[in-house]
Amino acid sequence: MSLRPTLDFLLYDWLAAESLSQRSRFADHSRETFDAVFDTCERIAREKYAPFNRTVDTQEPHFDGEKVILPQATHDAQKAYAASGMLSAAQDYEMGGMQLPYTVEAAANAFFAMASVSIGSGMLTTGNANLLMVHGTDLQKEVFAKNEFSGRFSGTMCLSEPQAGSSLSDVTTRAVPDGADHENDPLGPRYRLKGNKMWISAGEHELTDNIIHLVLAKIPGPDGKLIPGTRGISLFIVPKKLVNDKGELTGVRNDVALAGLNHKLGWRGTTNTLLNFGEGKYPVPSTGSGPAVSGAVGYLVGKPHEGLRCMFHMMNEARIGVGMAATMLGMAGYHASLEYAKNRPQGRPMGLGGKDAAQPQVRIIEHADVKRMLLAQKAYCEGALALELYCARLVDEQHTGTPETADEARMLLEVLTPIAKSWPSEWCLEANSLAIQVHGGYGYTRDFPVEQYWRDNRLNMIHEGTHGIQGMDLLGRKVLMEGGRGLALLAARINSTIERAIQIPELAVYANALGKALQHVGSATKAAWATGKPGDALANAVPYMQAFGHTVLAWIWLDVALASIAADATKSIAACAGRLGATRYFYHYELPKIDAWLKVVETRDQTCADLPEEAF
Amino acid sequence: MSLRPTLDFLLYDWLAAESLSQRSRFADHSRETFDAVFDTCERIAREKYAPFNRTVDTQEPHFDGEKVILPQATHDAQKAYAASGMLSAAQDYEMGGMQLPYTVEAAANAFFAMASVSIGSGMLTTGNANLLMVHGTDLQKEVFAKNEFSGRFSGTMCLSEPQAGSSLSDVTTRAVPDGADHENDPLGPRYRLKGNKMWISAGEHELTDNIIHLVLAKIPGPDGKLIPGTRGISLFIVPKKLVNDKGELTGVRNDVALAGLNHKLGWRGTTNTLLNFGEGKYPVPSTGSGPAVSGAVGYLVGKPHEGLRCMFHMMNEARIGVGMAATMLGMAGYHASLEYAKNRPQGRPMGLGGKDAAQPQVRIIEHADVKRMLLAQKAYCEGALALELYCARLVDEQHTGTPETADEARMLLEVLTPIAKSWPSEWCLEANSLAIQVHGGYGYTRDFPVEQYWRDNRLNMIHEGTHGIQGMDLLGRKVLMEGGRGLALLAARINSTIERAIQIPELAVYANALGKALQHVGSATKAAWATGKPGDALANAVPYMQAFGHTVLAWIWLDVALASIAADATKSIAACAGRLGATRYFYHYELPKIDAWLKVVETRDQTCADLPEEAF
Repeated sequence: MSLRPTLDFLLYDWLAAESLSQRSRFADHSRETFDAVFDTCERIAREKYAPFNRTVDTQEPHFDGEKVILPQATHDAQKAYAASGMLSAAQDYEMGGMQLPYTVEAAANAFFAMASVSIGSGMLTTGNANLLMVHGTDLQKEVFAKNEFSGRFSGTMCLSEPQAGSSLSDVTTRAVPDGADHENDPLGPRYRLKGNKMWISAGEHELTDNIIHLVLAKIPGPDGKLIPGTRGISLFIVPKKLVNDKGELTGVRNDVALAGLNHKLGWRGTTNTLLNFGEGKYPVPSTGSGPAVSGAVGYLVGKPHEGLRCMFHMMNEARIGVGMAATMLGMAGYHASLEYAKNRPQGRPMGLGGKDAAQPQVRIIEHADVKRMLLAQKAYCEGALALELYCARLVDEQHTGTPETADEARMLLEVLTPIAKSWPSEWCLEANSLAIQVHGGYGYTRDFPVEQYWRDNRLNMIHEGTHGIQGMDLLGRKVLMEGGRGLALLAARINSTIERAIQIPELAVYANALGKALQHVGSATKAAWATGKPGDALANAVPYMQAFGHTVLAWIWLDVALASIAADATKSIAACAGRLGATRYFYHYELPKIDAWLKVVETRDQTCADLPEEAF
Repeated sequence: MSLRPTLDFLLYDWLAAESLSQRSRFADHSRETFDAVFDTCERIAREKYAPFNRTVDTQEPHFDGEKVILPQATHDAQKAYAASGMLSAAQDYEMGGMQLPYTVEAAANAFFAMASVSIGSGMLTTGNANLLMVHGTDLQKEVFAKNEFSGRFSGTMCLSEPQAGSSLSDVTTRAVPDGADHENDPLGPRYRLKGNKMWISAGEHELTDNIIHLVLAKIPGPDGKLIPGTRGISLFIVPKKLVNDKGELTGVRNDVALAGLNHKLGWRGTTNTLLNFGEGKYPVPSTGSGPAVSGAVGYLVGKPHEGLRCMFHMMNEARIGVGMAATMLGMAGYHASLEYAKNRPQGRPMGLGGKDAAQPQVRIIEHADVKRMLLAQKAYCEGALALELYCARLVDEQHTGTPETADEARMLLEVLTPIAKSWPSEWCLEANSLAIQVHGGYGYTRDFPVEQYWRDNRLNMIHEGTHGIQGMDLLGRKVLMEGGRGLALLAARINSTIERAIQIPELAVYANALGKALQHVGSATKAAWATGKPGDALANAVPYMQAFGHTVLAWIWLDVALASIAADATKSIAACAGRLGATRYFYHYELPKIDAWLKVVETRDQTCADLPEEAF
């Protein structure tokens, strides 16, 4: 079973991705070049990723005292990925890129996420380099970003610290100027960093010649104290090994030391580390004039104290990336359990009772409850994929649209990103649980892949902003910003879908249900903020996000159903029936859940917030 | 943090467990003797189980070619358990038992499930021996059951087969008479068995002198064919090593061979096996007269063809046991995440924004969303514990009540058992996911216990009857049997709680909500069966069970709240506030979910059932 038919339909029939090639940036492209990328990625994922997904789970990264050891398969997979050009898929030709739309890049990466999510750590390297392309100097782009795009170097994002976790305002990594001439380093203002960074994915390994850490740290004020809050944060390039201004390794190891590997529940193909910066394990001789300063050498990116702004620039794409990873883990489980259900004989149809026990067993896909579990997975995962691609398409619009459509896309992305990140993290995880359930006892064994998908997927509600943080971002910032313009824009798009759907007899009832759901989300948003107190509104930010997400997905499915009906004349009838079935499932089984979630939102329920600690 | 205060409240203040000592069977008992049992079990669980929960996860059972190797800790824990007398806690004094109420036995076992669910495999041995006490001959009780109660032997249940799974009517293990005098064996009619049994917990190990397998198999008819369906199933005692009529090992190994260990997602302290019966690995010389017959030696229990009836006799207690295991895994995660939330500083209260970033961080239990995740866990797990104890109390009523109350208890158990099994399996698993979420990234590492609880708990929706089977049992059998008497009895109990609660101002609104929910479940039950077609009703048996379960839990919480208010004069105010908070949470956040589930039930929604296979 291939992902391609679903992907093709969503990209070409639904999102009209081919029309992007009419834009000057993508003028060399066509459906043929897009498809060639998909062919390549599908093949590499099939040959270099999928067969080793269990290998990277059982052969966890370990430190031999000098190096972090990863399975050979990981080395091979990453080499093949880099060789495919995917690290710089969206970059300009002059940077060695393919100038592909982000929509196509995101879709192509879906193959790797589905085959082995934890081998595929290209996302961080690309994100790191992309950030430098926006905020770095020309030389930083040349020395660091370009070598990351080629796969010679890899990249990390070093935000969290052990004592701070999600609370970035409490970052205590210090960066002090490295000598009197520190401003004059060609690679950027040179600092020395000291501090500890936690949860750093791909923080240490031998997959590439060098690792380029992007590190959030604070430059002390004249009094030597760190500025409280997020305002004091600056961003630094801290290479594992020092390089000269041609990007060549100087032979000097920077003072970045592995303090420990995290041993995880899943996602074990990607090393996750605690890193010590500037603890003195690899002391770097003072290179500047004036009194010697110790610490890891780092080069400032952008202006001091604007580090978080630079980092946030990458946030939308990183969060869409997490949403896509969650989606494809769900999809992998859906395909595996569908395959199993089609082949496993067990039991007999309902109503026969013991009377027809002499008849042969049927395959379990013939049981209504198994079909329910499969259709739920389809509705969750294919719906989530549609949402992620829709958001990716908005990213392209933001980058290459007219000023007006670009601004609209930016605003829509602000509101949709928390959903694109959180919804698949929650519901495609539930899909993975259903995939286990379809397998019965076999699903609970490590002889089948579904238990690993479920373990891998559990990460996605945690990293890149927890579920709680996404909820507060949505209800506390995104639906309020610019006078609620994002919500209004989204409502306009939803209403446009409703207007089209209401004219199709079989969809009219869903159009009406979606209209009601949208109104309910709108009124609940107002009610949540009726007192103007963040505490009143945000105590139920997660239930709000759950209801918001289900409404968005109901809209996505209705819009996909419209496209499916429109395309039916030329498309496989079964695929269309499947999409309409999933739409029906979503409106019958899922959308009605929003009332329960919104109930506590609109009453500003403080049951949880008010319970005293000693009562737990 | 101890489980005791919660357990004490539920047992003594809510269920009046002490009053059981007024019954003649329990006349020697009192709250003091019950408490002494709890003290012992709490201590053994703390000393011999909890410290080794991670050990049994990482040192999975393995086969060295001759023996199954388990960690020493498992041997020690099981010895301590047997020495405590818990294996025969509920048995008659003359069998070496303590004649404890089942309610007390179940509560005492909760400590082990919470400390390390997968070490504690006493449940199968006790269940096995209990079955023999009901259906076995006097000598079978003496030779097999008694040695199981003492811990000298252990027991298994061998139902599933690789080709049949949940479909017991497709069992193909054959049992043929072992010679002409096979009826005359003192241990029971002697047969020879051939077949494969899958998913056999504790199927092979060196923890005890012998393993007593209870095996479902079919005796071929005169034509040599197996009778189709479940009617053809008989039950046999198949010891791993043969014994004489004094229970002494004869030195002859029976032909039961380990075919493979299952490598599981969790619950790794318990060996899970594929066993081959009578494949000839350990051939047993023919002992009877007439032509030699090969196969594993087995002794018939009860009458031929009544094996499933014998097995079902144990089903209610086994399913309550699974529900209790799921509950205590949830509770373990709740306690761990509560502890973590009370100690982990991170972030600042909502509304301060960046302005007060100079203030110290607060502990995460001060954040509303963390409190929401903790209160949800409390509502799920303490509510589930109350339900399990309520069901255990019904078991005691069934065994020691007046004919009328015993029959009522039996009927209520029929209806409540699918809920007692399924509800904690689903919602205490969700609690474990929330416990991970409270821990953030740390929860995803194996340095904290919560990821293991989540993995361990995933089994409970699968074994001892899957979620789907529980749903069909509830809607397809239990609410219909005896003219719907079980549902009527349950409704009467719920209404009695409503009548009391409606008089308490702070509970009246919940009493009304429960009344409506009960009506909704009732009308949905009728609507589901309006056409009389099983296919129409049972396509949504799982959503029905979810709604039914939430309604039952809402009732349990309201009843617990009543007891809590009644007890408040003498009890800790904080504990009472906690129970009222959990009740409030359940009515505000959880009970409203039932409408979405019942919607598809009452419309007999066939969206899933009707979708053709090729449309997936």
